[in-house]
Order: sequence, then C-alpha cells, then structure tokens
Amino acid sequence: MRTVNRLALLLCGLLAGPVLAQTTVLTARRIHTMDTTQPQVQAMAFDAAGKILAVGQAQALLARYPGAKHLDVGTATVVPGLIDAHGHVEGLGLTFLTVDLVGSANKQEIVGRLRAFEKTLPAGAWLIGRGWDQNDWPDKAFPAAADLDAAFPERPVWLYRIDGHAGWANTAAMRAIQRDLAGNWQPDGGIIRRDAAGRPSGVLIDNAMDLMEAVRPPMDEATAERALVLGMQAAVEHGLTGVHDAGIPLEELRRYQRLADQGQVPLRIYAMADGNKAALQFLCRNGLYRHPSGRLQMRAVKLYADGALGSRGAAMLEDYSDDHGNRGLMVMSAEELAVAADKAHRCGVQVATHAIGDRGNRMALDAYAKVLGRDVDSDHRWRIEHAQILSPDDVPRLAKLHVIASMQPTHATSDMPWAQDRVGPQRIVGAYAWRQVRDAGTHLALGSDFPIESVDPRLGLYAAVTRSDAQGLPAGGWYPDEKLTAFEALRGFTLEAAYAGFGEHEVGSLEAGKRADFVVLAEDPLKVPDAALRSLTIQATYVDGKPVFEASR
Amino acid sequence: MRTVNRLALLLCGLLAGPVLAQTTVLTARRIHTMDTTQPQVQAMAFDAAGKILAVGQAQALLARYPGAKHLDVGTATVVPGLIDAHGHVEGLGLTFLTVDLVGSANKQEIVGRLRAFEKTLPAGAWLIGRGWDQNDWPDKAFPAAADLDAAFPERPVWLYRIDGHAGWANTAAMRAIQRDLAGNWQPDGGIIRRDAAGRPSGVLIDNAMDLMEAVRPPMDEATAERALVLGMQAAVEHGLTGVHDAGIPLEELRRYQRLADQGQVPLRIYAMADGNKAALQFLCRNGLYRHPSGRLQMRAVKLYADGALGSRGAAMLEDYSDDHGNRGLMVMSAEELAVAADKAHRCGVQVATHAIGDRGNRMALDAYAKVLGRDVDSDHRWRIEHAQILSPDDVPRLAKLHVIASMQPTHATSDMPWAQDRVGPQRIVGAYAWRQVRDAGTHLALGSDFPIESVDPRLGLYAAVTRSDAQGLPAGGWYPDEKLTAFEALRGFTLEAAYAGFGEHEVGSLEAGKRADFVVLAEDPLKVPDAALRSLTIQATYVDGKPVFEASR
Repeated sequence: MRTVNRLALLLCGLLAGPVLAQTTVLTARRIHTMDTTQPQVQAMAFDAAGKILAVGQAQALLARYPGAKHLDVGTATVVPGLIDAHGHVEGLGLTFLTVDLVGSANKQEIVGRLRAFEKTLPAGAWLIGRGWDQNDWPDKAFPAAADLDAAFPERPVWLYRIDGHAGWANTAAMRAIQRDLAGNWQPDGGIIRRDAAGRPSGVLIDNAMDLMEAVRPPMDEATAERALVLGMQAAVEHGLTGVHDAGIPLEELRRYQRLADQGQVPLRIYAMADGNKAALQFLCRNGLYRHPSGRLQMRAVKLYADGALGSRGAAMLEDYSDDHGNRGLMVMSAEELAVAADKAHRCGVQVATHAIGDRGNRMALDAYAKVLGRDVDSDHRWRIEHAQILSPDDVPRLAKLHVIASMQPTHATSDMPWAQDRVGPQRIVGAYAWRQVRDAGTHLALGSDFPIESVDPRLGLYAAVTRSDAQGLPAGGWYPDEKLTAFEALRGFTLEAAYAGFGEHEVGSLEAGKRADFVVLAEDPLKVPDAALRSLTIQATYVDGKPVFEASR
Repeated sequence: MRTVNRLALLLCGLLAGPVLAQTTVLTARRIHTMDTTQPQVQAMAFDAAGKILAVGQAQALLARYPGAKHLDVGTATVVPGLIDAHGHVEGLGLTFLTVDLVGSANKQEIVGRLRAFEKTLPAGAWLIGRGWDQNDWPDKAFPAAADLDAAFPERPVWLYRIDGHAGWANTAAMRAIQRDLAGNWQPDGGIIRRDAAGRPSGVLIDNAMDLMEAVRPPMDEATAERALVLGMQAAVEHGLTGVHDAGIPLEELRRYQRLADQGQVPLRIYAMADGNKAALQFLCRNGLYRHPSGRLQMRAVKLYADGALGSRGAAMLEDYSDDHGNRGLMVMSAEELAVAADKAHRCGVQVATHAIGDRGNRMALDAYAKVLGRDVDSDHRWRIEHAQILSPDDVPRLAKLHVIASMQPTHATSDMPWAQDRVGPQRIVGAYAWRQVRDAGTHLALGSDFPIESVDPRLGLYAAVTRSDAQGLPAGGWYPDEKLTAFEALRGFTLEAAYAGFGEHEVGSLEAGKRADFVVLAEDPLKVPDAALRSLTIQATYVDGKPVFEASR
C-alpha cells in the first residue's frame, strides 16, 4: 500500500506538475471580490488560460496549489478589473492625434494651441481639434468662425465641442459645404447657429454637424486604427479591463476585429452598433457578434434621443431656465426611436439610448415600454445612457421597465457650475440622481463618456462618492443626498457595468469560474479617505490573468 | 375701486393678523427635507398647531406669511426630527436610577461602582445595576456570584448584562429564588450557568432571568414613572423627536398615558406591546391605540425569536464558531411565534420580532410567511428587530415578504471586536449587513437599542457611515462594503423609521401638511467629514413646532 501510494504521488506530481506550474496563486493584503457571499479574501488562484480556480485564504490556496506560481502583491489591494460602461475608444485615441482643446481658458488660448499643432500638418490638411467648452470662457458665449479666420484664412479648421454635440468651423471649412448655410432653414435634429442677418456663425449643433462630416476629408484607415490602439492603451493604463464603446459604425467593428485577430485588443470591448445603420443590420443578418478571443463583442445598438445639456441640445419637457422658448431638440424622433428599437428587439439586440434631458429620457422610456410590450419582464437589459435629468415621475419607471441606468459621475462634477442655470432649482433635483435611481431598484452602471471626460475611472469613483471637484468644492458635495459609498461606486464600475453588458457571469467580480481580470492598487479604495480616491495608485492591470499594464517602479 | 381695495386690504390685515401672528417662518442656511422632490430648502412655515404650511425659499415664504414670527437659525442646518426605531425608554431612565456599569474594565471596577451607589440605598433594598459586558474584561469570561459575595454578603445584588439578555446575581439574591438552581435542568429558552459540580454560578441567561424577576422587589410606580420621564428627556436632548419603544407591558402603556394626559410626553412614542401578553390582548379587544395628543400610540407587538450574540443566546443554524455544540436558543418556539403572530394578524397589529442569529431570523421569516399567507403583499409593515446575522438565502426574503429591517448601527461597532469570533469568517458576511439589506430592496429603519447602546443618534449616524469605533478604528471601517452614506443613515433615522411606524404621512420629512418635528444642528450632517458626525452640535429639538430642547448658549 505504502509503495502504491508513493507511486501514485509520484505520478500525480509528474502529471500535475506542468499543469500546476501554469497555475498562479495571487496573494494580497486584501482582495475585494465584489461577491457578496465572500467580499474579502487574501488569495486567488487562476489557471494559465486566465480562469479563476478559487478565491480564499492565502495559506489554504497555497497549500491547495503547491506547484503554482506565487504572485505576492504584498500590501496591495486587488479589485475586479474596472469596466467603463460608456466610452468612445477611437475618440479617446484621436485626442492624442488631434489638437486637445480641453481646459482652454479662452479663445486666444485655443488659437495658440491650434497654431502650435498646425506646424505638424502638411499643406491643405484639415486642422481638427476637440474639447472646447464655452462655459469655461469669460463670456460663456458660443464662438464664431470669425474667431478663427484671422489665424487660419485658408486652412479648414473643425473643432468639436467637449461633449461632441457641437462643432465650430472657420470660414474655410464652411466653404467646403455646398449648400448655402444662410437663411432660416434647419436640418432635422440639428441647429445651424446664425447671426442676426441669417449668416452662419460657424457653430453647428447635433445633426447639423453632419453637414461638415459629409465634406471633411475622411480619416484614413491607419489613423483610425492607431486611434483605437492608443485609446485602448490609455484605458488599461488607468485600470480598465473593459469598455463599453458607445456607438461605433460597422467599419470600426471591422477595425477592432482585425486588431483582435492580431491579439492587439488588451481589454474587453463591448461595442454598440451606432444607430439604425449598417452595424445593426449586420447584427440582424448575422446574429450577435463575439470574437473567439473573448475580447470583443457586439450585441447592442446605441440610439439617440436628444443632444447635450451644455449646448442646450438636451430635450426638456419645459423651457431651459436660462433660455426661454428653447426646449432643446430630439436627435431621433419618437417614431424613429421606436422603429429602431423595434428592429433591435426583433433581432435580439440590446438597446442603449442616449438621453440627457427629461423629455429625452421620457421619450426613450416611452419607446421602450411600447416596443417591449409583454417582453418588459424579460432579461432585455435595455439601457439609458446618461439618464441625466429625470422627471420625478420617470425615476420609478426605470425600475418598473427593468431599464439599466448607465451614468457618468464626472459629468455631474463637470456640469455642476452651470447645470442649475440650465434647468433651475426644481429640475436639478432629478439630475445626476444616482441615489434616487438606485433606491428605486434600478441597476446602475457607471462610466466616464471619455473623451468627453477623462478616461481615468479614479475620477469617477471620486466624483460618485464626493460630488466635489478636484479642489474638494463645494465642501461636502453638490446635492450630497445623491452620493454613493465607495463600495457602491466600485460596484458601478465593476459588477454593475458587467451586468449592463450581459457579462456578470464572466467578469465584474472575482469568483471561481470567472475571468482573472483585476487591478492591483497600492491603497484600499474602500478604506481610504474619500479625497484619496482620485489618487489611488494603479500598480497593474490584468486581463485573463495576464498583465496588460504594469507601472514602472 | 381703489377705496374698496384699500378697505379689503385693511380687513384682511385685521382678520389675518392674529392668525398669522401664530405662524412661524423658520429660515436656515439649509433645511434637508428628506423629500426627494425638494431635498434642500432655506425656509419652512408652520402654524401654531405645529403643522407645516410650506417649505421653500426664504424670501418667498417671508413674503407669503408677512405677519409670521420669523425664527432665523442663521448658519444652522435643519433636519427632520430623528426617530430611534428601537429603544427602551424606561430602561434608559433606569440607567439614571440604578448603577451604571457600562464600560467597566474589570470586575473590581464593578464592585467599586456598586459600593459607591450602595451608600444611597436603605437597608434591605436590592442593589440593581446594568451594563456589564464580560467581553470588555481581561479574561472575557462570564462572572460569578462569588465575585460579588465578599463585598455584598447580605444585600441582594442583581446586575443586567449590557444587552439585557443575561443577569448576574450574588448569592443573597439567588437565595430569594425558592427553586433549587442546582442540578442539570434548564428553563425553556433560558440557561442557568453552573460550575462543574452543577452549582449555579450566578449568571442567568434569557428566560432563566425570569426566575429572578419573579422574586425581586417590584419597581414602585413612582420610580417607573420617573424613569420614563428621565428617558424621554434624554432622548429629546439628543435630537430625538420619536422613539419606537420596543416592547412594553400594559402597565407601562398606562404610565405613558397618564404622562400624555398631563402633557408630559415631549416626543412621539410608538410603543410595541411586549410579547403575547396583556398589552396585545388590550389591542385586540380595544383596537389600535392612539392618544389624542399624537404623542403616544400602540399598534405593534414585539415578539422574541432568540437571545443575543454577546451571551451566545442568538439562535444559529450551525454551531458557534467559538463554542462548538452551542447553537444558541429560541426564546419563543416556532409554534409560539406563529401563534402570537397569527393573533396579531387577526387583530390588525404590526409584528416586530427580535431576531439576532441566522436561525432566529429564519424562524421569524418563516413565521411571517406562514401567518401572512396571501396577505404578504398587503401594507403589513411587519418588522424584524436587529436582523443582525442573516443567511445569504434570507437576505432576499426580507424584500420578498416586504419585511422592514430595523437595525442598530452602533451594535456593529460595539460588537466588531468579537463578533467574528462568534460566527466565523463566512457568516460574518451576513452580519450587520445594511448595504445588502438595502440593495435587496428592503426598507431599513435605524435605531440604537438604547440603553444597550447610547441613546445618542449621532453615534448611530457615525457608525453607519464609517463602521469604525470612536477612535476611527479599524481605519476605513469594518467590512466597509456595508457602509451607508450620511444621507442614507439620516434617512434611516427619519423617513424610514417613520415608515416602520406607519408614520411617514405625518413625520420623517419636512413637507407641507406634516408635523413640524425637527432638529437644529450647527453643522450640516450631509456635508461634514464622516468623523464629524459623532460631534454634530444639537442646538434645539422641536416637536409640533415647539422647542422641547434648546442647548444653552
């Protein structure tokens, strides 16, 4: 017997050795699993393929996997990989390839940044920038083509507003549009801003931007691909292991597919088809898409109810408080929304609708209720992106219709200097109302809407918990009723974001059978003072058990 | 026309004058209403009877009630009156009339405190104390009669443990019990602790305490009434405008009634009948009780599933982790619980059951499910008091059965040094699990269980938000997933506690038509750093628009 046992042990050792050698046991001061049955452990074992085998006590797991590689992160804290439920990867990458105008204090500074960047451009190339926000300027007024024409009389200049819902062109760029922009006509769902004489001022809002998009030189394929790569790289450097890319055309899915085929997708991309267009048609024809690597899928469509609050494009039930007679605009009509949602419904595609104003949100909920009909209690997981300003009557409707709220904490703290001017003291109570949304029983996924806000999820955690700006103002937070705890904020960026992408069985928490997607932080985000959430130290980001980012020591 | 208008104005002035003079307009830097449609206002008007007329902007209300008294609290913040959803008013008052043993570092200190108090007693009177906790002592072992006998050989001594679930007697007190306490018998739902030779040690647990209660001299009526008055006074001094008195006998309701008739009830008492006894019978015979003053009502019954965790009397599904073979005890059997709950159900009486252990909680939920049957979706508002340790399977049952969780944040921070020893690392995850309970969709009312914990709700707010002790330890909090935000904690002590007492249409938030019960705080509890919640400055407590406590300047 003894000999047999020894032989068995030997054989086991020989057989198990190579397998076990590829198993990793991670030990840390603390692992926040986000699994409510076992929220804090000290160790996690995962196999060579990146599947979590077990979580638990360090000594127990080290004993259970004796041949495993031991990855000891010392006093660090491990949390599930962060998932940004709403970002724009190509847009983020383009910020590295176009002029970054974010934080410009005035128009003179913008001209200065444009001049500096222009030196890198060949003759005739368009000068593209993004990130301006008139609310940051002394006069808070929309800019005009004239502000650019002196410096750029010949070269076309086209500058996206920070929220992507407006563009600012110089006269050279406007000349590229064949149609006369003067007069009093407006495109559906868009605004051409004009002076008193009816001449276009240079700012095009929402669907009016399409007039320029149709004529500006298309981005070449190499630049587009480079933007994706740079965007994904920036994401993993900030602890993101997943991004819900909120609206991409079919050609961008193809671009992602090529990168995934080459193993160049370092995190999980949950792409949404952009509008009722070719990508949705592709899903309806071919079925929901998932790349074999597990790093890329498309099973959702992004629709658009209205514009944005900053440019007063958000559709409101009543007039803007600071612009009487203006109730914003619908980007898709109620009928278009319903038609697109119905198509998605028939194809088994999840719908995620951009809705900012209280009218935009109500239209989206109305469309969902109508289209889903008896299927409202099914596992549809339809979402509203932003859900920024909700009528008190609509807060409970989200829960009743099982609609997920996909919200961006940093929007609140970016918008708080002027949001109440736009909507007044009554409607502001339903704005950025995370606590109310949660309390109504709604799933709350968090994101950033990068590059409109920073890709850095630490800023989102901080904003969710403090409702204060980087300086900690207002002290104690803006409408502090709506604060989340650090745990709730972290859950919004992990398990809840996973749920919003049908991914909670695979990611979002650290449990046996799930993927080893995690972040190593020097500090414990559930224990640090609130103010320290902004400056958590991201030591490493792992996807499928492999590091995709490691901070240099 | 002009003359007529003038006359009308004059008449209005004459007629409205005396009425308006009794209206008060309160202005403050900020009033947190707890009304989600209007969470922050600067002013509130209430009439002479204490009914809120309006809330809103200061200038608007001052203009609307021109003859009103203006009560300007300057830079203070006003919140709805705090409601402790679980306290024991007489017990609190008795702490001022008996020996306070809370915080004794060892048995020698207890003997010292007893000796000092004894000097105030006549010969032959029993020496009664309360507040000992063996977990605070070096050996953490239960005490014995012998520890008291040397100092008190003749005078009976009877000392309640801090949780009220155990008593410690000297030999003189045990002699008063006719029945021989030696041997191996035990009373139902109680434990007589004995030494190896079978002799009673002096500690009686849960129902075994009744052996002593039956023989100790009854409290005289004057002392009992004095205790109620002192208890209520302490409550309003700490910002409480309501207390749910968790289990009182019929004679105590009579005592409260007498005080209410004399206008000596300064806050709202929501009394629960104690057990399936005379007070429940009174409700069944006479209907739900409400004193015309609005300050006293009884429409609930307190039942008891199990004992307490500190004394290992809480009923657990598995053995105590630090006492193998012990699963605690049921104070009422499953059948007794069901019989009592059924009686309450037939009489329209709300049931609130004490349940600490996971078995105790499951038994309570089982009884509720069985008794409520098809009425489970009715507006029954049945409660579990403490809901301290929940099996993961039972967390969603609370919500499904629409059972309110009435929890005490300071229990968590008092018990955290030893709670995990009792139940181990798995079961601790379902202990004091406020966030899980809330996230499951359960109403969460907060309280203190005074005098087991301090009556001071500021300590409850602090404990709920930080899960740390007074020294801020453990840094970042004990099981920080379960933290609440300051808003959630305040809601638990206001609107949610009101809901747990069928009172949310009358109190719990500051809205037109409700009662002007409020607290004036020097600081804003939703804006101060978490650590400052312990030391908020209570400037005044108002009930029905009248001050019942004002801090001396």
